[in-house]
Amino acid sequence: MQVSVEKIAELLNGSIDGESGIIVDNLASLSDANSSSLSFLANTKYEKHLYGSRAAAVLANEEFVPKKGEKTPIIIRVEDPYSAFAVVLEQFERSTVIAKKGIEQPVYLSSKSNLGNNVYLGAFSYVSDSVIIGDNVKIYPQVYIGENVTIGKGTIIFPGVKIYANSVIGTYCTLEAGAVIGSEGFGFAPQKNGSLKRVPQIGNVILGDHVSIGSNTTVDRATVGSTSIESGVKLDNQVHIGHNVTVGANSGIAAQTGIAGSTSIGRNCMLGGQVGIVGHLDIANNTQIAPKGGVMSSIKEEGRVLLGAPAMDFAHTKKVWVVWKKLPEMQKRLEALESMIKITNPK
Amino acid sequence: MQVSVEKIAELLNGSIDGESGIIVDNLASLSDANSSSLSFLANTKYEKHLYGSRAAAVLANEEFVPKKGEKTPIIIRVEDPYSAFAVVLEQFERSTVIAKKGIEQPVYLSSKSNLGNNVYLGAFSYVSDSVIIGDNVKIYPQVYIGENVTIGKGTIIFPGVKIYANSVIGTYCTLEAGAVIGSEGFGFAPQKNGSLKRVPQIGNVILGDHVSIGSNTTVDRATVGSTSIESGVKLDNQVHIGHNVTVGANSGIAAQTGIAGSTSIGRNCMLGGQVGIVGHLDIANNTQIAPKGGVMSSIKEEGRVLLGAPAMDFAHTKKVWVVWKKLPEMQKRLEALESMIKITNPK
Amino acid sequence: MQVSVEKIAELLNGSIDGESGIIVDNLASLSDANSSSLSFLANTKYEKHLYGSRAAAVLANEEFVPKKGEKTPIIIRVEDPYSAFAVVLEQFERSTVIAKKGIEQPVYLSSKSNLGNNVYLGAFSYVSDSVIIGDNVKIYPQVYIGENVTIGKGTIIFPGVKIYANSVIGTYCTLEAGAVIGSEGFGFAPQKNGSLKRVPQIGNVILGDHVSIGSNTTVDRATVGSTSIESGVKLDNQVHIGHNVTVGANSGIAAQTGIAGSTSIGRNCMLGGQVGIVGHLDIANNTQIAPKGGVMSSIKEEGRVLLGAPAMDFAHTKKVWVVWKKLPEMQKRLEALESMIKITNPK
Repeated sequence: MQVSVEKIAELLNGSIDGESGIIVDNLASLSDANSSSLSFLANTKYEKHLYGSRAAAVLANEEFVPKKGEKTPIIIRVEDPYSAFAVVLEQFERSTVIAKKGIEQPVYLSSKSNLGNNVYLGAFSYVSDSVIIGDNVKIYPQVYIGENVTIGKGTIIFPGVKIYANSVIGTYCTLEAGAVIGSEGFGFAPQKNGSLKRVPQIGNVILGDHVSIGSNTTVDRATVGSTSIESGVKLDNQVHIGHNVTVGANSGIAAQTGIAGSTSIGRNCMLGGQVGIVGHLDIANNTQIAPKGGVMSSIKEEGRVLLGAPAMDFAHTKKVWVVWKKLPEMQKRLEALESMIKITNPK
Repeated sequence: MQVSVEKIAELLNGSIDGESGIIVDNLASLSDANSSSLSFLANTKYEKHLYGSRAAAVLANEEFVPKKGEKTPIIIRVEDPYSAFAVVLEQFERSTVIAKKGIEQPVYLSSKSNLGNNVYLGAFSYVSDSVIIGDNVKIYPQVYIGENVTIGKGTIIFPGVKIYANSVIGTYCTLEAGAVIGSEGFGFAPQKNGSLKRVPQIGNVILGDHVSIGSNTTVDRATVGSTSIESGVKLDNQVHIGHNVTVGANSGIAAQTGIAGSTSIGRNCMLGGQVGIVGHLDIANNTQIAPKGGVMSSIKEEGRVLLGAPAMDFAHTKKVWVVWKKLPEMQKRLEALESMIKITNPK
Repeated sequence: MQVSVEKIAELLNGSIDGESGIIVDNLASLSDANSSSLSFLANTKYEKHLYGSRAAAVLANEEFVPKKGEKTPIIIRVEDPYSAFAVVLEQFERSTVIAKKGIEQPVYLSSKSNLGNNVYLGAFSYVSDSVIIGDNVKIYPQVYIGENVTIGKGTIIFPGVKIYANSVIGTYCTLEAGAVIGSEGFGFAPQKNGSLKRVPQIGNVILGDHVSIGSNTTVDRATVGSTSIESGVKLDNQVHIGHNVTVGANSGIAAQTGIAGSTSIGRNCMLGGQVGIVGHLDIANNTQIAPKGGVMSSIKEEGRVLLGAPAMDFAHTKKVWVVWKKLPEMQKRLEALESMIKITNPK
């Protein structure tokens, strides 16, 4: 994709210092840029990389003023350089991924399925009976779609994703490679003889709109009813979502975090990586949990920021850690007191 | 699947209040139920959902007596409503999964392999030389089965599972999507020049009977000999089992737990999610480890319940946590004592 | 593969007690061995398994002297039995994996791709436009290779691996089943309305030479620029590598460890399982981090050994844990002091 600096400024409601007519054909960081790259300066911490960068043009904040005497690429001033860069990235992506269309061979496509317009279906993908696929859906190779699945328009499904029967996928979702939607939850009834009787799970998974699912993330279907990932939720790689969990709208969950069965996460929550939340809890809206946090009881108040395992308020855990790191010293001080007291209080 | 309430009562050795002839065609929770749903009440905590539920019928405990004046669905009384519901779920599941049979096209099926009766082999699956597949095995699409693998009768393998050469899979196992059996373990010999020489691993993996493997779970093959998952074991999603590990019969391991190489887990153990156990340990039978537990030494006594990282007896860790949370306060009390002692014991 | 004991000794620069002409055709542990097995004794702890082993021959240390009167297999003396066994294992492996060649059907092979000599391409694999594959590359079934990917000679890619567009894979790498290379990183720009705007990521992933990637491990591509796994790095199963991360040459990372975006790991580092490192850090060369460690700040000094979450020097964390385990007792001692002080210092 080739586009002029002026066209980009127009797309972003930005302004340019001077005129150019220069064409950019790739996006890169300030240090990796070449003479036809567009780059961005989102944080003035990185300002030094601007001077001397070979980039053709750079997105910068409206207020940004370069140091006197320094040579810079053409500056496109925008309200929020990071978000603006995201918009341009999306345009470049569209010119590759979104351009794909048609049905490659071989595929397995049930005659009882229903495909929208402008769909891409990659080779070795499998579409079962009673599947409904919306317009502009892009399905990469080696994807499995079980019976009775619905996929909303504009959704992109990367290679090797597996979607079990009866799942409902919203519009404009992105599912990265190896993600599994609708696998069987971890449910069993312990028997008198010590064995674990598998409980078949007949619910499903519902993804809202604009949901992102990371690579090799797994979302279990409900025992009965639905596991629900609401609109705007972003799950990173290798996240585990247990059966009957709800993740509220616009929440983000970082890599390798696990949510056990029947727990409900509120809206606009942010969970760091490797967080664990046990089953049957309610986590309030706007909760933030730092990486590796362990949550064992419901969070009722909205907007709390938690740290540690077991998780407590961020500032409190920080204080606990300060003392915890000095426990050996503290023990010595205690022992010193004890010997002094003995002297003071002889038997 | 459509079945009468009477037929279900008969299947479960249950009893019904009154007669009905009513047909149910789906299973649902009390709140999601419609007028042809069968539901269950396993815990009287949820009794309020019973009244007003639209379910046609509900499984309840033999002793359960509904409140006077409340309208309820038809009640089928059984010894253990949860286990009974599992039995019915299994019947419904059988009517879909178990009904699949035949070989879809295209598949890659070695002429040197051996298929039992009533097998389902989904499109894009790959069966290597010298594979033996038992009766009633169901292999979904995009599955890979390496050379010399044996799969016992009644086992179900969901889409995209990868089974390396020489693995042995027992009867009536379930392998969820994306699971990997028999990948190479993490073995290397550090060299004098600082590099890590990969040690090829030529052992295999053996799964017993009635084993469940969760989605995207990985079980490494042994360096030499076998990694062994004994009969009745249930592994949740994204579990990691290292090379030469043994997991004893009827043990259950929740999501994202990792067992490092050459560790042996006893029988009837229950491990929570995100537990980590280092290599070369022995964990006694009936051990329970709470989520996020970290185990760094062998557990010799049977039946212990452990919590924390490093893991200690559950009750003890709970006590430690109570004090740990108050460490900043404890430090202040220590400082207060110190200044008082100084007054009492002036130099 | 059948090979004489003399041939093995020659290959390993080892020496044999006596002559034999005996042929071995498999490798096994001392206890699993049969009469045509080669085995090894790397640790004298296992010496008892040597006596009575049915193995035909065993690799042992140059200095090893068996107990008088005990019957042993033929002993091949080598400098480092474990590394030597690795060499033999590799030979056996070569006779199976490395022997594979040719293109199975069906595959999807773009006419705009370029295959080297002696390549194996398994059925249901997908090779996109502008892919370059080196000599002796072995690609198992159901692998996906995106546009413009380069794969160096001698690399082995196991079933179901997914490699996104523009990735660069070095020579003699091993990618285990289900690994994902180049998926989209977890980047988003929070919007004023509370939603998370996905930031498309247009960088790539570069793997050096002799890199091993474990099963279901995921390596995200960079936002712009490259995520880089340098030569000789070994990643175990279910490891997560975020966008723009660098892992330095010859570092090893055990299972289920996660490295957040833009963090740089030095050379020759060893990270245990379930370690978590937050984003934007620098970890010095030769750092070792014990399993479950949590790292929240950069490690500047080389060669440190860390333990715990938050991670501190190994020996210090061990001391902290000793006191931590006795916190309830310590609290009682503090209370005892307080009541004594009260007596000594009445108000």
